[in-house]
Formats: sequence, structure tokens, C-alpha cells
Amino acid sequence: MSPNELFQYSVVSALMDGVASKGLPISTLLANGDHGLGTFRHMAGEMIILDGHVYQMKSDGSVSTVSPSPPSSSPSQSLEDDTSITPFAMITRFSPTVTARAAFQSKQSLYDRVSSLLPGTRNNYVSIRLDGTFRNVRARTVGGQTCAGEGLAELGKHQTTHEFASSEEGVRGTVIGFRSPAFMQGISVAGDHLHFISEDRKTGGHLLSFETVGEVDVKVAGIWKVVLELPRDDVEFDAAKLEADREGISKVEG
Amino acid sequence: MSPNELFQYSVVSALMDGVASKGLPISTLLANGDHGLGTFRHMAGEMIILDGHVYQMKSDGSVSTVSPSPPSSSPSQSLEDDTSITPFAMITRFSPTVTARAAFQSKQSLYDRVSSLLPGTRNNYVSIRLDGTFRNVRARTVGGQTCAGEGLAELGKHQTTHEFASSEEGVRGTVIGFRSPAFMQGISVAGDHLHFISEDRKTGGHLLSFETVGEVDVKVAGIWKVVLELPRDDVEFDAAKLEADREGISKVEG
Repeated sequence: MSPNELFQYSVVSALMDGVASKGLPISTLLANGDHGLGTFRHMAGEMIILDGHVYQMKSDGSVSTVSPSPPSSSPSQSLEDDTSITPFAMITRFSPTVTARAAFQSKQSLYDRVSSLLPGTRNNYVSIRLDGTFRNVRARTVGGQTCAGEGLAELGKHQTTHEFASSEEGVRGTVIGFRSPAFMQGISVAGDHLHFISEDRKTGGHLLSFETVGEVDVKVAGIWKVVLELPRDDVEFDAAKLEADREGISKVEG
Repeated sequence: MSPNELFQYSVVSALMDGVASKGLPISTLLANGDHGLGTFRHMAGEMIILDGHVYQMKSDGSVSTVSPSPPSSSPSQSLEDDTSITPFAMITRFSPTVTARAAFQSKQSLYDRVSSLLPGTRNNYVSIRLDGTFRNVRARTVGGQTCAGEGLAELGKHQTTHEFASSEEGVRGTVIGFRSPAFMQGISVAGDHLHFISEDRKTGGHLLSFETVGEVDVKVAGIWKVVLELPRDDVEFDAAKLEADREGISKVEG
């Protein structure tokens, strides 16, 4: 794939419907880019892909580095620890077209700034990356399914929310994410979908709210081509209703 | 693109919102496949792509062969006759994976048969081709915008419906189309979206209803990878609301 084309595996509605038993090998995912986010088999934590490295942010607040190579043995049967495949992920070969320094007080102020940095992208996807110091970070991590087929809305009720960097000095880290157009809700997550990881790779998650300590580096690029790969030979996916639950997605991914 | 991957330019919601002034060159579209459908600039008629040949089926019932090469002069300013670009199209390099002979009494009987020929594709795209003799064909052709920005729902009110082949012997021809999953309504047209062209290339359109005279050749293939290209530098697209008008799409594309 060319730079700034988006590759997406499956659709977020499938996660809402609990379709997370099978998926794409992480090694295949990484052939399509170096900047992305997603989740792991059975929704065990949040995935962030940063400069081609994959991290798993777990519900206990810890972070693991994920090896992209397929396991030599057969996939684990545990619902907890199979990080060799992803049931949902978005990835791009990120080549920022606009960079800036900016301070943010909220996700909304980031949203507004990205819109002004990239005019003409109201109905497009956008790749976003922030590097700098953040504080009052609220991040959520889903704990993984406790039984096959459990939906993301249900998991969301038991998600763990971490609040960190409440001190003045904050924490250095990186935000990776995508803006998806409103008309793609259910396929992707409409609006800004952002994952955070600290510079020491010790904490992170799906970003709910944050502010910056001073200015951070902002890098963005518009996306006009999306490759959507759908699950194949996956009875869960084939049986799923996949009715875009806009309210549910907004609630759990907001 | 590999066989049986789908390339789609823009989204059907954009047509609903009247976004049809700009588009993709037909020559670029044809680089992505040989089997497809769509429309032309300002929605001037229905497009069918059959074995790599592009035909324009007009509202007066006539059919023209479209040259894929870009015009040497600048694009026509007329709302009627610019067939060098498409504001919406779907195309694939069709390589049937299942073939059959079957008779159909309705679109519904075709739908059911394709579902049984390709189990496990409820939430996938499917390419469809029928060759044989058809009768009681009802096909619609949109007449094109009378002013820039006129939406497809409005155009639909003035669409021309042709009924032909009401005699016993029917008419030989080909049906080309795609099945799109329900969750892609607004992006594509959910369900079976089929265009018909007669073997003598003299008549055709967007298929509303039909039956076959005896059995016809049925060729289908499942699609698991979709490349969606969105309009770029297109102020109409950028300003469009693109709220999936499910009822409207179903009414005009049904």
C-alpha cells in the first residue's frame, strides 16, 4: 500500500456484536503500515502501533510489546493472551503532510485544530499523531471477553479507566489515531479514535480525555483511499447482525 | 488489484446528496477491473461495464459505447454528455468461483439462489453475472441532473422506466451487478444492485424486476477486500451531509 492509504480489517460493528474469536495475523497487518490501532483476539486490551512496533495495553494498566511473528505453536485457547491475531485494526503507512506545534485543553480542541490544519477533509479519514507531554489523561482498556461472543458494549460496562499524569509536570507520550467520517460509523468509529502510550511504554489505553502540558508536536495526513478487508470463513462474522449501533459505539468509543 | 477485489469510487450517499459534478476518469476506473456498474458525470444515465467495455444506458432508452480514453479537449460543460468521468462506480476483475444454470421468476429468487451458491457471504460483497434470455424486464435509467447538486432521490422521481421483452421469447442479454452487505448501506447499495444490457447493446438500465426464459448462466464470486476511493478536492463532496438515507436509497435503487 502507498503512504497514507488506510488498511482496515473487519468493522467496528463486529466488535459490538462480539465477533473477536478469529482475525488477521498481526504480521499480515504490519505489511500494510506502521501507524495504527485496534484490539487483540477476544478484545484482550487495546492495540497501538507506533513506528511499526505493536503494543498491547491491558486492563491492569500494564503494557506489553507484541511480537509480530506468528507463534510456532497453535494459537492459545485462553481468552486472555493470544496477541498473534487481531479481530479489528486500522493501520497506515503514515507520512504526515502537515505538522504543527499546538497546545490542547481537550479532545474537542484537538478536533478543531486538525480540521483547520486539513481543510477539505470533512468527509475523509485523517491520520493523527501527537508527541509531547500530556496530563489529566483518562484512558480506557477493555478487559477482554469472558466468554466468546460477548459484545463490546457489554465489555464497555466493565472497562477499566485509568487516570494518570494528574501532576503539573504530566507524562511524556504519544497519541496515535484516526479520524473517520460520520458516514462510516459502524464500519469505523466516526470522529477521532485515539490511543495513548507513555514514552516509557508502561501505561496507555484508548484515550477518553486529556490536555497537553504546553505545546506538543502535531502530525496529520488526509486519507482518500481505504482498503477494507472483511473476515473470511468466520462463522461468528457471518452470523452477526452488524447493525450499526451508533449510540452504543459512541458510548463505548467516545 | 487482484481478481475479485472490489474497487469503489465515492459512496452512494454522495449521489443521494447530488454530488456528481466531478469524478474519477473512466480510464482510471478501468485499471481496476472489467465488471462493474455506476453512473456518469451529472448522473447522465446508467453505466454497465461488461468484459471491460463501458456502456452508457440513457433515459431515452438508447445505449452508447463509451470510449475509456480521456477526451482530448477540456470536459464538456453540458450536463448531458460528459462520459469521461464517473462520480460513482463499482468495479472488479471478475473471476467467477461458482457457476450454475438456473431459472428465475424474480429478483428475490435470484437473491435466494446466490445465497445458496455462496454460503458464508451474508456480510460480504458478491459479484454477480447472468447471461441468457430474459423477459418482462423493468429497467430504470436516470435522466441526469438538470442543475448541479440535484440529488438522486429527486432524480428518481423523474426516472424513466423501460419495460421490454414482454413477449414469450424474451430478449437475450447480460445482467451485471454486486450484492453489498446490509451494514454498507449508504456506502454501497445494500442487497443486489444489478444493471441489464441486451445482447444487441440497444437497450438496458438499472434492473427493477425481471424473469428468465428458461435457465440462464449464473456466475458469482465472493469479495473479501474492498478498496474505497473518496473524492478529493471536491467542494461538493466536502460539503455534503452524507447521512445514509436508507429509505431513499431503497426507494430509488430498489
